[in-house]
Amino acid sequence: MSLETRIKAMTQAAKEAARELRRVSRDQKDKALRLMAQGLMKREQEILRENEKDLAQAKEQGMSSALLDRLTLDAKTLRSMAEALEEVAALPDPVGEMTGMWKRPNGLAVGRVRIPLGVIGFIYESRPNVTVDAASLCLKAGNAVILKGGSEAIHSNLILGEILKQSLQEAELPGASIQVIPTTEREATRILLQQEEDVDVIIPRGGEGLIRFVTDHSRIPVLRHYKGVCHVYVDEFADLAMAEDICFNAKVQRPGVCNAMETMLVHEGIAGAFLPAMLKRFRDAGVEIRGCPKTLEYMAVAKPAEPSDWPAEFLDLILAVKVVKGLEEALDHIETYGSNHTEAIVTTRYDRARRFLEEVNASVVLVNASTRFNDGNQLGLGAEIGINTSKLHAFGPMGLAELTTQKFIVYGNGQIRT
Amino acid sequence: MSLETRIKAMTQAAKEAARELRRVSRDQKDKALRLMAQGLMKREQEILRENEKDLAQAKEQGMSSALLDRLTLDAKTLRSMAEALEEVAALPDPVGEMTGMWKRPNGLAVGRVRIPLGVIGFIYESRPNVTVDAASLCLKAGNAVILKGGSEAIHSNLILGEILKQSLQEAELPGASIQVIPTTEREATRILLQQEEDVDVIIPRGGEGLIRFVTDHSRIPVLRHYKGVCHVYVDEFADLAMAEDICFNAKVQRPGVCNAMETMLVHEGIAGAFLPAMLKRFRDAGVEIRGCPKTLEYMAVAKPAEPSDWPAEFLDLILAVKVVKGLEEALDHIETYGSNHTEAIVTTRYDRARRFLEEVNASVVLVNASTRFNDGNQLGLGAEIGINTSKLHAFGPMGLAELTTQKFIVYGNGQIRT
Repeated sequence: MSLETRIKAMTQAAKEAARELRRVSRDQKDKALRLMAQGLMKREQEILRENEKDLAQAKEQGMSSALLDRLTLDAKTLRSMAEALEEVAALPDPVGEMTGMWKRPNGLAVGRVRIPLGVIGFIYESRPNVTVDAASLCLKAGNAVILKGGSEAIHSNLILGEILKQSLQEAELPGASIQVIPTTEREATRILLQQEEDVDVIIPRGGEGLIRFVTDHSRIPVLRHYKGVCHVYVDEFADLAMAEDICFNAKVQRPGVCNAMETMLVHEGIAGAFLPAMLKRFRDAGVEIRGCPKTLEYMAVAKPAEPSDWPAEFLDLILAVKVVKGLEEALDHIETYGSNHTEAIVTTRYDRARRFLEEVNASVVLVNASTRFNDGNQLGLGAEIGINTSKLHAFGPMGLAELTTQKFIVYGNGQIRT
Repeated sequence: MSLETRIKAMTQAAKEAARELRRVSRDQKDKALRLMAQGLMKREQEILRENEKDLAQAKEQGMSSALLDRLTLDAKTLRSMAEALEEVAALPDPVGEMTGMWKRPNGLAVGRVRIPLGVIGFIYESRPNVTVDAASLCLKAGNAVILKGGSEAIHSNLILGEILKQSLQEAELPGASIQVIPTTEREATRILLQQEEDVDVIIPRGGEGLIRFVTDHSRIPVLRHYKGVCHVYVDEFADLAMAEDICFNAKVQRPGVCNAMETMLVHEGIAGAFLPAMLKRFRDAGVEIRGCPKTLEYMAVAKPAEPSDWPAEFLDLILAVKVVKGLEEALDHIETYGSNHTEAIVTTRYDRARRFLEEVNASVVLVNASTRFNDGNQLGLGAEIGINTSKLHAFGPMGLAELTTQKFIVYGNGQIRT
C-alpha cells in the first residue's frame, strides 16, 4: 500500500470518527481521558523501553544534551502527563455551550452553539509528552486528531498512541479519534497537508522552519505562530522597581520560549535612573546586552546592536535594548519589529496605559505585568494547544473553546421568507 | 511601473491605513459612511455615465440579459445603495466590544476585546452595488479593504471607488482605507493573493469557479463557501401544511441563491399523504422534479434522479426528491451530499428536532423554518458580507463582528511569573 493510500485511509477514518464524536457525552470523553491516565501508569515499563530506543538512536546521531533532555521520558514525566490528562478531564466541556440566543421579529429563535471543528492535523517536534497533551485537548473538544511527531520520537509516540487508542476503545469511543502517523518520512506530512476534504485545520508546533514548511505546503487552514519578538516598554512614568522586576522576569525566567522579552524599550527621560541597575542585574544573570548608542553610554561592555537584532527572536540570554524618545517611538518600533505576539508597557500613567492597550496590534497586550503571562493556563483558559498570531479564528493562546467553532441553530414554527 | 509594483503599493498603503483605522472613533467612521451616501446621490449622473460604458461593452460582447440586469445601475439602485450605507452607519460599532473579563488568582485582570482584522482583500463578480456594500462593512469594522471586482463592471467600480475615497478624505480618514484595483487583468488578483505580509484575509464572492481560483492561488487565509446544497427533511410527524409551505418557499422564493433548497427528503411514512399535493404545487410553479424511484410512483412526469443530482447545486427551478426510511437515512444523506451550508427539518416531534439540530454539521440548522433564513440580516447580525462554510473563524453568515478578531488585554500591578 502506498504512503498516500495509508495517510488517506487515516484521514478518512478520522473523519468518520469525528462524526461519532459530535454526539458523545462529556462523561464518555472524560472516562476515556481518565483511562488514558491509568494506561500511562500501568504501562510505564513498556513506554520507557520504547523511549530508550529513541534515546539510543538520538545519542548515536549525536543529538545535543538539551534536545536529549526534551526527548527523555521517566517516571516523573509520565506522572505529570497522567496528571495533565486528569486536569483536562476536569475542565468543562466546551461543546454544546450556547454563546447567545435571541428572538427575531418574526418569532424565529436564533442561537449560537459551540461544536467541534472536526478533524485536526497536529504536527510537532521532539517532546513525546506533547503527543498526549495535544490529543487530550482535541478529544475533549470533540475533535478527531492525527498526530505527526518528530522522527526522533517515533517509538515513544507510537507506544503512547497505542495506549491512547486502547483507552478510547475501552470507553467505547472510536479508536480512530486519535491516530499517530506510524512513519518518520517527511513525505507523510506533505500528504497529510493535502487532505482538505477530510481535515479541517492544521496546528503545527515547533521551530520556525517546521512552521514555514507546513504553511507553504498546506491546502488546509493553518493556525500557528512563527515567532515571538516580544517587547517591554518602560515608560518615563514607570515605577522603576516594578519595571526592573517585570523586565528581569520577562527575559530571564525562561529565555527559550516564545513569550520571553527579546527587546527592552526605555523612555529617555528615565534611562539614567533605570538602566545602570537594570543592566547590571542582567549582566550578573549572564544576559548579553545588545544596545543602541544611548544604551551603550550606560554600559561600556555592552555590544552595539546590529540592525538584525531588532527583529530577532533570540530564545536565549540575549537582549536588545533601545532608548526611545517616548511612547510614540515605542509604538512605531513595536509596529515595525513586533510579531503580533505579546507586548507590555510599565507605567503609572492612565493615558499611556490606555493608548498602549488600544493601539498595539498583538494577541496579548499587558500593563504592568510580565510578557510571560501569554499562555492559555496563565490567562485562565484552562489549557493551551498553542498560540496563533494570524488573526483568523483565534488570535493568541488557544484553549478548548478555540478548538471548537459555532453553528447557528434556529427554532421556528413555520416561518417562511417573504 | 509593473503590475506587481502597483498592487504592492496598494497593499502597503492599505496596511498603513489599517493602522490608523484601529484608533478612529465610531463617529468618524459613521460620518464617512453618511458622506458616501450623499456622494452617491450627488454624483448620480456621473455614476450612470460610467455604468453606461460597462453596459455598452457588455452588450457588444453579447452578455445575457440576466447578467446585464445585475450590472445595471439606475436611480433606484443608487438610492438603495445609499440607504444601505445609512443602515451600516446606524449599526453598533463592533470594535472595542469587551466579550469577557475575569480576574486571575494572582490579581491579573484579563479581558478580551474586539479589534479589526486589518486588511481585507475582497474579490467578486458583476454587481457594482457589492463594491459599496462590502467596502462599508469592512470600514465599519475598522478594516482597510482592497476591492477587485469583475472586469465587466470596471468603469462603475472605479467611479464608485473614487466617491468612497473622497468621502473618506472629507471625514479625515485615510483615503487608502478603501481601494479599487484599477485594472481588469486577472494577474492582478493572483498578485493580490500573494501579499501575505500586508493582507490578513481574503473574502471571495461569486461562482464556484472564482472561489476555486482564489482558494488555489492564495497564500492568505480565505473565508468562503463553494456552494449551498441545502436540504429540507420532512419527517413522518411533520405538520404537512407547514412542511408544504416551508419546502415551497425554500425552493421557489428565490431559486438562484445559495440558501435555496436543492434536495427534499421525505419520510416514507408520510410520502403518500404529502408528496402528491406538494409535487403538484411545484409543477404548477414550473419546478422540474428529479425523483428517486419511490418519488416517481407519486408523479409520473418526474424525471428519474441521476447520481449527479444528489450533490448538485441547481440554482434554478429544479429539485431532487428522495423518499427515505427515516431520520437516520436523512442524516446519512445530508452527511454525504450536504455542503455544510443550511439544513432544515420539519417535524412536530421534540426528539427528532433535537437530534437533527445536534447532529447536522451545517453552519445553520433549522427546525420548522425555511432554509432561506441563512442570511446575516435575517438571523439578526444586522448585515452580511458573505457566508463561510469552512469552519475556521466564522462558520456561517458573517456580519460586522465576524470582520473583527479578539485580542487579550491584561491589567496587572507588577505580576511576574514564578
